[in-house]
Amino acid sequence: MDGMNLGMSDRLKPVHEQVVRMVRDEIMPADEEFLAEIGRDGDRWSYTPRQTEILEGLKVKARERGLWNFWLTDSERGYGLTTVEYAYLAEEMGKAHLGAETFNCSAPDTGNMEVLERYGADEHKERWLAPLLEGRIRSAYLMTEPDVASSDATNVAMRCERDGDSYVLNGEKWWASGAGDPRCAIYIVMVRTPDGSRPKHEQHSMILVPSDTHGVTKLRPMTVYGDDDAPHGHMHLRFENVRVPASNLLVGEGQGFAIAQGRLGPGRIHHCMRAIGQAERALELMCQRALRREAFGKRLAELGANYDIIAECRMEIEMARLLCLKAAWMMDQGDRRAAAPWISQIKVVAPQVALKVTDEAIQMHGGQGISQDTPLARAWTHLRTLRLADGPDAVHRRQVARAELRKYTQQPL
Amino acid sequence: MDGMNLGMSDRLKPVHEQVVRMVRDEIMPADEEFLAEIGRDGDRWSYTPRQTEILEGLKVKARERGLWNFWLTDSERGYGLTTVEYAYLAEEMGKAHLGAETFNCSAPDTGNMEVLERYGADEHKERWLAPLLEGRIRSAYLMTEPDVASSDATNVAMRCERDGDSYVLNGEKWWASGAGDPRCAIYIVMVRTPDGSRPKHEQHSMILVPSDTHGVTKLRPMTVYGDDDAPHGHMHLRFENVRVPASNLLVGEGQGFAIAQGRLGPGRIHHCMRAIGQAERALELMCQRALRREAFGKRLAELGANYDIIAECRMEIEMARLLCLKAAWMMDQGDRRAAAPWISQIKVVAPQVALKVTDEAIQMHGGQGISQDTPLARAWTHLRTLRLADGPDAVHRRQVARAELRKYTQQPL
Amino acid sequence: MDGMNLGMSDRLKPVHEQVVRMVRDEIMPADEEFLAEIGRDGDRWSYTPRQTEILEGLKVKARERGLWNFWLTDSERGYGLTTVEYAYLAEEMGKAHLGAETFNCSAPDTGNMEVLERYGADEHKERWLAPLLEGRIRSAYLMTEPDVASSDATNVAMRCERDGDSYVLNGEKWWASGAGDPRCAIYIVMVRTPDGSRPKHEQHSMILVPSDTHGVTKLRPMTVYGDDDAPHGHMHLRFENVRVPASNLLVGEGQGFAIAQGRLGPGRIHHCMRAIGQAERALELMCQRALRREAFGKRLAELGANYDIIAECRMEIEMARLLCLKAAWMMDQGDRRAAAPWISQIKVVAPQVALKVTDEAIQMHGGQGISQDTPLARAWTHLRTLRLADGPDAVHRRQVARAELRKYTQQPL
Amino acid sequence: MDGMNLGMSDRLKPVHEQVVRMVRDEIMPADEEFLAEIGRDGDRWSYTPRQTEILEGLKVKARERGLWNFWLTDSERGYGLTTVEYAYLAEEMGKAHLGAETFNCSAPDTGNMEVLERYGADEHKERWLAPLLEGRIRSAYLMTEPDVASSDATNVAMRCERDGDSYVLNGEKWWASGAGDPRCAIYIVMVRTPDGSRPKHEQHSMILVPSDTHGVTKLRPMTVYGDDDAPHGHMHLRFENVRVPASNLLVGEGQGFAIAQGRLGPGRIHHCMRAIGQAERALELMCQRALRREAFGKRLAELGANYDIIAECRMEIEMARLLCLKAAWMMDQGDRRAAAPWISQIKVVAPQVALKVTDEAIQMHGGQGISQDTPLARAWTHLRTLRLADGPDAVHRRQVARAELRKYTQQPL
Repeated sequence: MDGMNLGMSDRLKPVHEQVVRMVRDEIMPADEEFLAEIGRDGDRWSYTPRQTEILEGLKVKARERGLWNFWLTDSERGYGLTTVEYAYLAEEMGKAHLGAETFNCSAPDTGNMEVLERYGADEHKERWLAPLLEGRIRSAYLMTEPDVASSDATNVAMRCERDGDSYVLNGEKWWASGAGDPRCAIYIVMVRTPDGSRPKHEQHSMILVPSDTHGVTKLRPMTVYGDDDAPHGHMHLRFENVRVPASNLLVGEGQGFAIAQGRLGPGRIHHCMRAIGQAERALELMCQRALRREAFGKRLAELGANYDIIAECRMEIEMARLLCLKAAWMMDQGDRRAAAPWISQIKVVAPQVALKVTDEAIQMHGGQGISQDTPLARAWTHLRTLRLADGPDAVHRRQVARAELRKYTQQPL
Repeated sequence: MDGMNLGMSDRLKPVHEQVVRMVRDEIMPADEEFLAEIGRDGDRWSYTPRQTEILEGLKVKARERGLWNFWLTDSERGYGLTTVEYAYLAEEMGKAHLGAETFNCSAPDTGNMEVLERYGADEHKERWLAPLLEGRIRSAYLMTEPDVASSDATNVAMRCERDGDSYVLNGEKWWASGAGDPRCAIYIVMVRTPDGSRPKHEQHSMILVPSDTHGVTKLRPMTVYGDDDAPHGHMHLRFENVRVPASNLLVGEGQGFAIAQGRLGPGRIHHCMRAIGQAERALELMCQRALRREAFGKRLAELGANYDIIAECRMEIEMARLLCLKAAWMMDQGDRRAAAPWISQIKVVAPQVALKVTDEAIQMHGGQGISQDTPLARAWTHLRTLRLADGPDAVHRRQVARAELRKYTQQPL
Repeated sequence: MDGMNLGMSDRLKPVHEQVVRMVRDEIMPADEEFLAEIGRDGDRWSYTPRQTEILEGLKVKARERGLWNFWLTDSERGYGLTTVEYAYLAEEMGKAHLGAETFNCSAPDTGNMEVLERYGADEHKERWLAPLLEGRIRSAYLMTEPDVASSDATNVAMRCERDGDSYVLNGEKWWASGAGDPRCAIYIVMVRTPDGSRPKHEQHSMILVPSDTHGVTKLRPMTVYGDDDAPHGHMHLRFENVRVPASNLLVGEGQGFAIAQGRLGPGRIHHCMRAIGQAERALELMCQRALRREAFGKRLAELGANYDIIAECRMEIEMARLLCLKAAWMMDQGDRRAAAPWISQIKVVAPQVALKVTDEAIQMHGGQGISQDTPLARAWTHLRTLRLADGPDAVHRRQVARAELRKYTQQPL
Repeated sequence: MDGMNLGMSDRLKPVHEQVVRMVRDEIMPADEEFLAEIGRDGDRWSYTPRQTEILEGLKVKARERGLWNFWLTDSERGYGLTTVEYAYLAEEMGKAHLGAETFNCSAPDTGNMEVLERYGADEHKERWLAPLLEGRIRSAYLMTEPDVASSDATNVAMRCERDGDSYVLNGEKWWASGAGDPRCAIYIVMVRTPDGSRPKHEQHSMILVPSDTHGVTKLRPMTVYGDDDAPHGHMHLRFENVRVPASNLLVGEGQGFAIAQGRLGPGRIHHCMRAIGQAERALELMCQRALRREAFGKRLAELGANYDIIAECRMEIEMARLLCLKAAWMMDQGDRRAAAPWISQIKVVAPQVALKVTDEAIQMHGGQGISQDTPLARAWTHLRTLRLADGPDAVHRRQVARAELRKYTQQPL
């Protein structure tokens, strides 16, 4: 293979152009009305008829245009896009609140669908994957628990015990993103299935739990800087004697980590791609504000350090995008171990850059910036979660450092 | 005078000790229940009986103990504390949600009471200052407007026209902090009273508007990163032909800026003192978490850069506190012009340091940090507003730079 | 064209491999001896026989292997490399003190040779370009002056007056890099040739001045943090009635800026590419030190924030390299105006990243780091000059901001 | 004691005023000529007659005026200044190259004199302390060694073996600051005197070695970013069978650490005070340049982010100074253990702030800034050494973090 092509492929260009236009002309304008509807009829955890109309309308249009399930890497059912190609689309989707869902490319569903595709039995695919691929239901991924440090995933403690043809689950999960959505039908759950004969990283399993299973209680939504993110929601759930068929266990006992690792690579980078789109949107708003608003007889752009701030934001975005594309390209080369430190790198960089750019855009907007009148504050709180989700920064920096030091030593690190 | 005493005076120590204990032992434990009550009976903009009981209970206790109106600088009715002395108390109050209000030292009331004290007529004092001093009503300060850059206060545009014995006000104000509170009875409003015969900084006036005046509409609460801060609230208000007696105008037409400047010095620094208290609280939570939580077989404290993070936070807090005390001391010297750049300095530094420390504390707490389960996320959003309130960072940095450069030139800057 | 290939081309790989090996195995080991020879026989501004032997020996080897003049973009005399391809080689050359010169790719000669190639008359090419291409002489580029702010190049003030068939130059230049070298035979000089009939950017010209012309005085070497960089040298020169043939003027009066702009693009990016190589070298030394040195019973790598520091350095280098490659790729597309903001971006980023990485490497080395015992301190001072050379950071950030804002306005910026 | 007085005492003011004036009017103007003389008569490691004249002339004047040995904390022979008072003087001394030495307050002599005063025998005082107090000789402190990580001082390895009435020393020391000075007559040397019966921190001793003792070889000056700092010098020394009388050992075997700790507190903070003076000087030069120099038709002050840069520098200096004064005040309280984390804090902060301010001043000066034409580049390299001298930043941050965490735990850290 000659070189490292990080540009847009010719085949992607027309698709990209369609996505750009649909995000800008149809989805962005719909966002505001959709968000204003939340809780309008008294329940923040259901969709109003108007919300359904907006969202499903967008989905139907996208699907009719063939703009659907871009993340699918096989070319039979999907476009067979490379990760690099997907990055260009994901960036655009990141610019609008309903961007990803319109094209059935939302987190955590894309990751969950990949899990079902790779590790699910035929009946799982039929029952859960099929409707997910069609955007008829949604899903959640239950990993984190309130009582343990999830940065070290071997801490996951939810009990899962075999009882005849069933497994019985007990414990709590939180930050179950999307579990607030009334359409969320299926949970993929990391559980502890201890077995003294297996090593430390084979003490956990992944199991499917329908959201309406007896014994599952939604304790509360976790709020993000005060925002409950309804109706999506990051739920705190309690499992009390939750019983599911033994066949719901994916692959086999002890395979939890193997499945999680496979899931996390693409999931992490998709978040990063969208974060870069959010950063671009924030810079755009910042520049427009800087040119429109006046104080002390000048445009804001011409005051103080604003040129420098704008320049810094542009430079950081460019670097983050290139790093993201490089990480995507590494994934496309097929060597997961070689790609891992690149994913860690972008997992650290993209949220921080997007947070910084968004924060500067907020500051340039004054009181409006922190308010509901721009998408900036909402974007910021979402981006802030990404410094913790799928591993906090510190863990990823550690991975990057170890990869670096291993070039020079064979001793353990 | 010999030297620059930034320490706690002997007379302050017993008072300080009482405040420390009351904040820690009585107010902090009450915060959580108080906050959980918001909106419990369906209306986020009123107090539940339990909330009233908690808050008024604390106030009664504080007042009985003589811990009340510390900000009052005259020694007849108050303690006659210096600004330096007040700083030590304000820091403690900043550590709890109900800290300042318990001792009748809340923003924006302290600033507003000072305005009424210095510039109010006797009838204003009787009607508004007296109940404010007793904590029976609350107040708001209406400055910022949605359509103009308030960083340049000469932009303030709300019309205020004389009509017989009245003034008639028309326009919009937003970020009227505290105007959501049902107890908020009086607004101090910056308005435009143009007069071609006066210079640019004498085109504005300050006028009192009772909150129940006909023509005042609460359009909506502004949210701060999604949080409406109910029932305090940062309200967006519309004034349509709001008519008040001409005697409600403070001092005289054209005196708006003079009054605002007098108000802002203490107001700004009180925010900074409390911000430092919030930073201390965040560092305390961070350390406790670092010692309590384990991952990879170690306490968090011993992982990665956490020692360095804790050290950096400690150093930045110490420096911010000292700078705040120095600014307070400058104010105590009585030369407002000399003190101004010091207030600008701490106005830039304190929120940024407190935001940084709080952000690191949040990161150390993982998902819990961004959630409702610690005071950290709420503190962060409040602190973030301080980088904009009473002048954005950029304006204050500009003031500091100009003061510096004026040492070397007499040309205009 | 399909995409944006930032990788190494297949044709480049064997050349790159040869350069990597020669830098690592032959040039790096020679650096130390070469540097230790400076001033050994009492004159810091000449080469000792051993220095000549080392340097010329390396050049002969490189040329015999065909590793010569990589910067030449035409494929007749050179490799016809793209800027992207050149970047990969320049990075390697940056790792050793004699790296660039060994392959006849030194600054400022490459830029000067391009000027002669594009704008020189045949006689200029014969007399100056030919020996430069063969590495027999060296050259300097005289732009900056002590009495004016060169960030605004219209300030350049050296007088250049026509007198019959000659031009006569008077004034001072400083930071004439390479003018200390006894082999430096030719200066390309920016001068002021005022003409009231031409616009502001056509008041300057570029003229060739042999270094031995009567009236040229080397006043002194400018030191960089105390280092005179002998025998290369950054000289402060005085021109008193320096007379050269009128034919030495390049292209025509008033073309100075046009020539300078053409020169600066490649020159700037070559500096950046080498800076990234220096950063890589510094990170390598840092990691080796972190693994080798012990304190408090542990390897330095395992102490404090060192993992995080190493990770940050790795991430910043990757981003800077990608941005540099992107800027190179933009230049290869042939639209100089479109490429300009990209060159400004990397001109800001590359030195800062390389300085940061080098500074961290120095800190990890303790006292050794700031001393003559590693290449780090020398690298740092060189890199520090790059934040000023060819335009200070502030000017380039301004260019980036203006390019950004122009997307949204057609008003002047 | 009431409060924490960080201001200038009344008794200090006239002295301070004299020091300010002498530094500004006599020492600063002399600096330039003094520095230009270095190496003028062919030997960088001796003083030219003119240098001697300048330096001794200043010393005589200072001493005649009673401006001498301010660091002496007893009020019989000195002023009996508090550390806070000394800080105000040290800041002024830091502004000029010859500032500290003029008043006999140079590093490392002040620290060495304190060692001799506290731990020296009468004969040591007579032979070494007396001439040091009079500024007739100078001294060096030999701690760091090339082969071990000195951040962990238990690594110090120079052998010191008893042989009859003598000790015999073997090994190497480097970064012996001041050992290049021909007047340097005495070394205080940390050596290893192993004794299996004593704990880890009692394996070292401190011993006096006259600089002309047989067996001492000056291998070379260590350079700091290429600068040899002649004739002061940071020397690399070899000790081969260096024999001194057994009575030269201070206090007793195993007391090395105890002595070093006592020495380091004041030594560290004196460096910090002077660093703040250097930062003030840099900011002054920055502002003057910003007002004097023009580009693009404006003063530099009005371009780009320069206002913000100036403001940031002012704020950081104020905070660093206050922290330094607080640390000094803590030392004055007499509890060394309580003061230790404060010294660590300012040891981290002061050099970093001064480096940052100096770097910004350099950038504002363009090429002139990095050159010999301002004191900035020289200041920068000196300040950079302070991030390593007397413990690298990382070690001090670690101390600060441990002090913080110990508030919440009694477990080992």
